[in-house]
Amino acid sequence: MHRWSQLFIPTLREAPADAEVASHKLLLRAGYVRQLGAGIYSYLFLGNRSVNKIIAIVREEMDAIGQEFLLPALNPKEVWEASGRWTGMGDNMFRLKDRKGAELCLAMTHEEIMTDIARKELRSYKQLPQIWYQIQTKFRDEPRPKSGLLRVRQFIMKDSYSFDIDETGLDESYRKHDAAYRRIFSRCGLQFVAVEADSGAMGGSASQEFMVYTDAGEDLIASSVSGYAANLEKATSQLTPVTEMEPTGDGTPELVHTPGKAAIADVAEFFKISPASDIKTVAYMGQTKTADGKTVEQPVIAFLRGDHFVNETKLCAVAGVSELRPMVAEELALYFEGPAGYLGPIGLKVLPAAKGDPRATTVILDKGLEGRKNMVAGANKLDYHFRNVAPGRDFTWTAIADIRNVNEGEPCPISGQPLKVAKAVEIGHIFKLGRKYTQSMGASVLNRDGKEVTPIMGSYGIGIERILTAAIESSAAASAGASYALHPAIAPFQVVVTITNVGDAALREAGEKVAAALESAGVDVLLDDRDERAGVKFKDADLVGIPYRINIGRGVAEGKVEFVDRLQNQTSDLALDNVAREVAAKVTSALHNPVAGM
Amino acid sequence: MHRWSQLFIPTLREAPADAEVASHKLLLRAGYVRQLGAGIYSYLFLGNRSVNKIIAIVREEMDAIGQEFLLPALNPKEVWEASGRWTGMGDNMFRLKDRKGAELCLAMTHEEIMTDIARKELRSYKQLPQIWYQIQTKFRDEPRPKSGLLRVRQFIMKDSYSFDIDETGLDESYRKHDAAYRRIFSRCGLQFVAVEADSGAMGGSASQEFMVYTDAGEDLIASSVSGYAANLEKATSQLTPVTEMEPTGDGTPELVHTPGKAAIADVAEFFKISPASDIKTVAYMGQTKTADGKTVEQPVIAFLRGDHFVNETKLCAVAGVSELRPMVAEELALYFEGPAGYLGPIGLKVLPAAKGDPRATTVILDKGLEGRKNMVAGANKLDYHFRNVAPGRDFTWTAIADIRNVNEGEPCPISGQPLKVAKAVEIGHIFKLGRKYTQSMGASVLNRDGKEVTPIMGSYGIGIERILTAAIESSAAASAGASYALHPAIAPFQVVVTITNVGDAALREAGEKVAAALESAGVDVLLDDRDERAGVKFKDADLVGIPYRINIGRGVAEGKVEFVDRLQNQTSDLALDNVAREVAAKVTSALHNPVAGM
Repeated sequence: MHRWSQLFIPTLREAPADAEVASHKLLLRAGYVRQLGAGIYSYLFLGNRSVNKIIAIVREEMDAIGQEFLLPALNPKEVWEASGRWTGMGDNMFRLKDRKGAELCLAMTHEEIMTDIARKELRSYKQLPQIWYQIQTKFRDEPRPKSGLLRVRQFIMKDSYSFDIDETGLDESYRKHDAAYRRIFSRCGLQFVAVEADSGAMGGSASQEFMVYTDAGEDLIASSVSGYAANLEKATSQLTPVTEMEPTGDGTPELVHTPGKAAIADVAEFFKISPASDIKTVAYMGQTKTADGKTVEQPVIAFLRGDHFVNETKLCAVAGVSELRPMVAEELALYFEGPAGYLGPIGLKVLPAAKGDPRATTVILDKGLEGRKNMVAGANKLDYHFRNVAPGRDFTWTAIADIRNVNEGEPCPISGQPLKVAKAVEIGHIFKLGRKYTQSMGASVLNRDGKEVTPIMGSYGIGIERILTAAIESSAAASAGASYALHPAIAPFQVVVTITNVGDAALREAGEKVAAALESAGVDVLLDDRDERAGVKFKDADLVGIPYRINIGRGVAEGKVEFVDRLQNQTSDLALDNVAREVAAKVTSALHNPVAGM
Repeated sequence: MHRWSQLFIPTLREAPADAEVASHKLLLRAGYVRQLGAGIYSYLFLGNRSVNKIIAIVREEMDAIGQEFLLPALNPKEVWEASGRWTGMGDNMFRLKDRKGAELCLAMTHEEIMTDIARKELRSYKQLPQIWYQIQTKFRDEPRPKSGLLRVRQFIMKDSYSFDIDETGLDESYRKHDAAYRRIFSRCGLQFVAVEADSGAMGGSASQEFMVYTDAGEDLIASSVSGYAANLEKATSQLTPVTEMEPTGDGTPELVHTPGKAAIADVAEFFKISPASDIKTVAYMGQTKTADGKTVEQPVIAFLRGDHFVNETKLCAVAGVSELRPMVAEELALYFEGPAGYLGPIGLKVLPAAKGDPRATTVILDKGLEGRKNMVAGANKLDYHFRNVAPGRDFTWTAIADIRNVNEGEPCPISGQPLKVAKAVEIGHIFKLGRKYTQSMGASVLNRDGKEVTPIMGSYGIGIERILTAAIESSAAASAGASYALHPAIAPFQVVVTITNVGDAALREAGEKVAAALESAGVDVLLDDRDERAGVKFKDADLVGIPYRINIGRGVAEGKVEFVDRLQNQTSDLALDNVAREVAAKVTSALHNPVAGM
């Protein structure tokens, strides 16, 4: 029997001033965690207990589809060099040297180690498929740790990796993960949504994120009532056709003096057009890391509608670069001559790459400009614009692609219903990885015909603390961040039995009895036997997120106790003789009727 | 149902040539682990499964006495500086810098972090006692990783820390750990022994190690039939009185020409004495780390009986240094003048420390020389010895202490029975730590009288992989390292059901039935449904350490199956209809009748 008086549950009246999001404040106030350093937390008794319960659920569902491993966090440099990611991981990876000077890193993910095992141990299609998973501590040198457990430098992940003989096999491993993830998040009581995610940068073919809507989230999700949902990095929309402007003159580009009209709104007003008929020019330098760790740059120019915004994730993928930065004035002068505010496609200098240098000027046209005519664009000359501009006729590009963010209210690409855009936190990710690692690291097996083939991989992750944090954020939203109640599957305790006055022997006895009965019915119960005022005890119990509370108070004399269901926000009187049975049934029912995801 | 055909169990016929000890070879051959780098291992399906079972037992027993936390492996430098161990840990601690240049380490132990929490959160005696534990990955930059999982650079530990108001409280926390550890090791099926351990270097007052005898161990344990057992670092013995030599001349030191007699045996023969009447001189430089990370040295000279050997752990503790190295020739010349082989106490230059330098020459006399007379000793002059030497009369010392190793056969300090000395591996350690950390880090609480007092700590550890390794070593000893069988509490599977011929439908059906019946009786069963020869399957099953095997073979036609109890090394025929029930009962009985420790 767990007795509050014996436990270390350091609740706080106030959260430290630097705690911003609700979950961060509440995790500290509830005595779940304490901060040790930037992005580094100690999990105390209650926090660890919740984490252990989440891990148990994840393990149970993963055991049903795969085999658990445990890989080292400490990795020799060599195995990361084999895949080319020793340099590719950049400053996000912690690196260190051992006493002999050998270079090591702290793994952020384990594609390399899993592929290393696969290449050494798998020889035949008969050994496939394999799904290998682990629940393990990961390290990441996060540039700006913040938001409590949402952006940290050390965290627990369930990561898994599938190896299949072909795409059909991968589809099945991916489907199994999708189903297991839905079961896991539902059992944890999360209202989650599965969204299409970007997969370009990692070279894979399909990717899905599991998200929980919350203002504490750092991702943006576009969704519609039709069920469409995608990360903004990936989301698309249908575009309503724009009424084209009438041409002037002979219909070819005509230079117009537009003094002081640099902003798109001003240009639109000047020409009496919608911003949708203006061509926006965005000029970047795209960055790529070479195998020897150097960063090389190339110009990446994007053209899109004046009312649209560049989605850098999409643009990176299309341009084949890993990062983008805006051009500085000297670079703008080099490629455009004209000043910022008057940039445009006509007269842009697509400079040839140096001999043998693949980094020529890359020009990407957003799909929204495809087939448009009579548009306005900067003339690469101070105080001048062109009108009658037609993409294709008047300028060309390297590639045409969807490189823009969808806007709230635009038609859903499937149903045409207006899209909503909302913040969310990612709790899981499944990903068809392809053959990037098996190929670069030389894993192969013999197929049915005795030929060497390269297995195809999937990579799948769940952030254990993210589940806890998302659950707290979701629950706390209802009380404007004042408190939260966790689902009984992941709460540190399912029921707290509060003896309102431990000085009263009858109440003490009744509390002990109810708690013991709950415990023998398999309920994870905490007996609040502290010598504190009832109000303090109620507040603490609410603060630590326990979903159900039984108040053992004066009603005991008439055989009654108060039951508080914090998930339903209901309070009721129950018979003392019956309360353990009824509450145990309620807990069991909650565990067996998990929340449905979206 | 776990089916071997679906699992990744990469057994090997041969162990890699560099695997030395039995457990290392077997862990690799059984497909439990694979090496990723020096002292860094990946745990595959079976190995991880065993580790998880050990962790579950440890957690269950620790939950009964304490509260589980989870502390970060990544620690900021500052908290280690607060205790003075940032430098004290030396090269054993992995250190790294983050992207901003801040210094971090990978924790080898968590006294600092636990004390940091205690000093911030504990205010009153009412909050004591506390026992906080965690099961977590530790890192250690081991200078010579070897012996498979015995000496590694990353490993899992259960570490716990107790905080008590006074010594009586600490005694109780220590006792609780002692009892919990005995339950844990017994449940894991280990024949362990609890031994007195050294506690000097860490500044504590009592210390006990839990050991398993095995030739793979790196510790030496002295024990006697009386139940006395101590780490050689700490062990003592009764000494049989030595018959003193007769004095010559006037009974004061007399110089004797002993040409070429440098070795103790030669000296004893020359003087016709037992080596027990010769004084052995051992000259070291003792090393200490200062707070700013520098190593300073001081001479440490030990005198002991010619038939005794220095115990450097004991000597370090007495001399107050952290390491010892033998003096080199120039140093010998400085302090003794005489050459090696003729060193002795008379004429030793106890050089005064430099002004303000505390590092004077330290001379330690072993207790075995106390009160002796008429001994022989080197004369600090080539080819000369003194006789008639009496410690105390003819030379002095800084301290007198037990600084020697006990020898096999010497009388047990308690019973007088002859001591045995044998190799063992440490699986756990409990330690009365004292106030070193609470004092240096400024933790205090108010006692019953409202006075500030410093809580007293205990520190306790269990090596999770050590339990697995010790179990394998113990079991493998019986077959000269050829195979092993784990206790059903920690084996990856408790029973393997081997279908000797999967081409035979009747055998397949019988195997499925037996395995299903075992599973529904709560037994962790593995069905070997591979299309392999029976011999291969038996070999593999033995190799992976499963304690019980049921062979589904031709006997099925007559309603019989073969049952192999690998723990008892017995084979018997059981009725097919009954086998699941009987074997399930056997497993249950094994789980409820743990091995008794010593």
